[in-house]
Amino acid sequence: MLKLYEEIKAKSLKLDISRGKPSPEQLDLSMDMLNIKDFQSESGDCRNYGMLDGIPEAKKLFADMLGVGLENTVVCGNSSLNIMYYLVSLAFSHGVLEEKPWGTQKIKFLCPSPGYDRHFSICEFFGIEMICIPMTENGPDMNIVENAIKDSSVKGIWCVPQYSNPTGAVYSDETVKRFANLKPAAKDFRIFWDNAYCLHHLVDKPKTLLNILTECEKAGNLDLVYIFCSTSKISFSGAGVAAMAASKNNIENIKKALSICTIGYDKMNQLRHVAFFKDLNGLKAQMIKHRAIIQPKFDIVLEVLESELKGIGNWNKPEGGYFISYNAPKGTAKRTVQLAKEAGVVMTPAGATFPYGKDPDDSNIRISPTYPPVDELKQAMELLALCVKIAVNGVSQ
Amino acid sequence: MLKLYEEIKAKSLKLDISRGKPSPEQLDLSMDMLNIKDFQSESGDCRNYGMLDGIPEAKKLFADMLGVGLENTVVCGNSSLNIMYYLVSLAFSHGVLEEKPWGTQKIKFLCPSPGYDRHFSICEFFGIEMICIPMTENGPDMNIVENAIKDSSVKGIWCVPQYSNPTGAVYSDETVKRFANLKPAAKDFRIFWDNAYCLHHLVDKPKTLLNILTECEKAGNLDLVYIFCSTSKISFSGAGVAAMAASKNNIENIKKALSICTIGYDKMNQLRHVAFFKDLNGLKAQMIKHRAIIQPKFDIVLEVLESELKGIGNWNKPEGGYFISYNAPKGTAKRTVQLAKEAGVVMTPAGATFPYGKDPDDSNIRISPTYPPVDELKQAMELLALCVKIAVNGVSQ
Repeated sequence: MLKLYEEIKAKSLKLDISRGKPSPEQLDLSMDMLNIKDFQSESGDCRNYGMLDGIPEAKKLFADMLGVGLENTVVCGNSSLNIMYYLVSLAFSHGVLEEKPWGTQKIKFLCPSPGYDRHFSICEFFGIEMICIPMTENGPDMNIVENAIKDSSVKGIWCVPQYSNPTGAVYSDETVKRFANLKPAAKDFRIFWDNAYCLHHLVDKPKTLLNILTECEKAGNLDLVYIFCSTSKISFSGAGVAAMAASKNNIENIKKALSICTIGYDKMNQLRHVAFFKDLNGLKAQMIKHRAIIQPKFDIVLEVLESELKGIGNWNKPEGGYFISYNAPKGTAKRTVQLAKEAGVVMTPAGATFPYGKDPDDSNIRISPTYPPVDELKQAMELLALCVKIAVNGVSQ
Repeated sequence: MLKLYEEIKAKSLKLDISRGKPSPEQLDLSMDMLNIKDFQSESGDCRNYGMLDGIPEAKKLFADMLGVGLENTVVCGNSSLNIMYYLVSLAFSHGVLEEKPWGTQKIKFLCPSPGYDRHFSICEFFGIEMICIPMTENGPDMNIVENAIKDSSVKGIWCVPQYSNPTGAVYSDETVKRFANLKPAAKDFRIFWDNAYCLHHLVDKPKTLLNILTECEKAGNLDLVYIFCSTSKISFSGAGVAAMAASKNNIENIKKALSICTIGYDKMNQLRHVAFFKDLNGLKAQMIKHRAIIQPKFDIVLEVLESELKGIGNWNKPEGGYFISYNAPKGTAKRTVQLAKEAGVVMTPAGATFPYGKDPDDSNIRISPTYPPVDELKQAMELLALCVKIAVNGVSQ
């Protein structure tokens, strides 16, 4: 094994399966969007100032995508992460609705783990204590969540409810209902519902996710959730359109605050997206094209895991989203990622999928198959498998 | 007069000279930018993630526009106001460099007035006490500024150094040098240098503005200033590109923070701008085209002021920028704006150019000539002049 590893190392590979980036072929799918030349929205000239909360046509598109009303929707710029940061920052300086600013208290967030490192970074940046919540195949362990929110210093939870980053879990109906029925001690507790992969299916009959806002309404808990989505992995990852949704009450408050923080978002790009995708069906049709490009990549990763690592750790077979989550035998993830790096394959740092970058089991490795070509991906995966075996055997040091 | 006023009122006019908005003709000047189809930057694919601080080509363009180095420049999204808000918010939550967060203290900002209402709104939103600084034709009254910064709770000042909003003042060399040589009691005092109109000349031989970063360097005061600019009034006001500049020290700190708050800015739009304008000369050539469109509008405003209001209040003849600042006789601005509104002409609310929306003299009225066609503008100005006279005479109530 070591000989093979050294041989591969000598090849000076430069492979990267670290981030969930679309491939150039995927980005090419949306290039016709750029032919659009008419920037008159039904509410005015998209090239000029105004329409702070988004053009009406884009509101309709995103409201349909999220299954919410126009009055629940704000269409923003190119980064949903930026909206999430903004809402945490706003709560930090001004509080949520009538409650005290988070910045004046010691507060905590619940972090289903493994999860999305950039969610956790926002917490770390604001000095928010993070509490790990174990993930199950149905979503976060709700018994633990329901218990944790009895603490009034717990102000939020990060959720990627469909095709969770990185485990691929789709929250079950029961999970969503239990979320909607939470009775947190803190009135300003918010679920940060990052529905980044709501249309990103890899199977013909995807599991359906219950509509959290509808469930919250049924539960008399309308203000409980902030919902996010974007076209970052539908159109252009650097130049898509992001949106948020929430109760009218939350949205009205956020819009007032938004009027201070920006002159408005890029409405030309909003109109470009609407003109190109037209409606929810247009978005869905685009996702079928994406699937055709990325499915073989997920397949090759799963094939190599199956053929090389059967019985050594475990992994999920995602039905959508952007990641495969591989759990190496305890205590070997860091060493594995290090070995891969030395041989020219960049992985997400081991531990990154946990709060503070610390995986208590040193086990989880996030694999992002979408960016590299299939042959490079195969090479990278074979090397990864080899590195796992070396790390497990403790042969090299 | 009243009869004439009632006659005009009966026409149900709908005119708007309230905001500094480019006209459709001005926006048309940049439409060819949208023909660009190649989105490969010298540093990679602009359609994908990455290049948090801007693509290198755009950094070069904006560094040249601001007369600073590449290492001093970050290229952002479509709103320079959003960067200003972000930096205040960041200082509020995390402090500036090693200093204590602003949110933990009672702090103050200096507000040269009349000034830009959206600057003042940011202060008001964060509960920052605003101190009015009188404007002269050479910039803020520097004696008062130099005295005010002896107070360590004074953390910042808003400046529009070239074609000040709304007075049109260009800061003199002496003013800029005195700014660069400020020795504030607060180490985390920052000059917010909003150079929004740096290329927006209305004369053949514009006054030159000293480079504040260079002057700060000479004064051994490198970290003192944050500089902002955008193409909002060069390309598209809703979909331009904004940038900031500061010392390397400041920029390194801000970049670390930025990596938490966004996945990156829209680099496709950055490349579009670079491909279209090419370089600083391209920007300047575009501004000559803008001038040809807007100069007649400034002229008509000045003509009506001259013919109708000579001896009644005073006004500036701007050499650039977006506004004409009319000082009505004391105590008549609110009434004038109200009369105009009732007759169908929307003006910037009287007082808006002062902190807390309160003009101590109830005198300043900001006129924005760029958006309406010349004939509508003439109509609006004639009505405004009539309203001033009515308000001054106190005939109507």
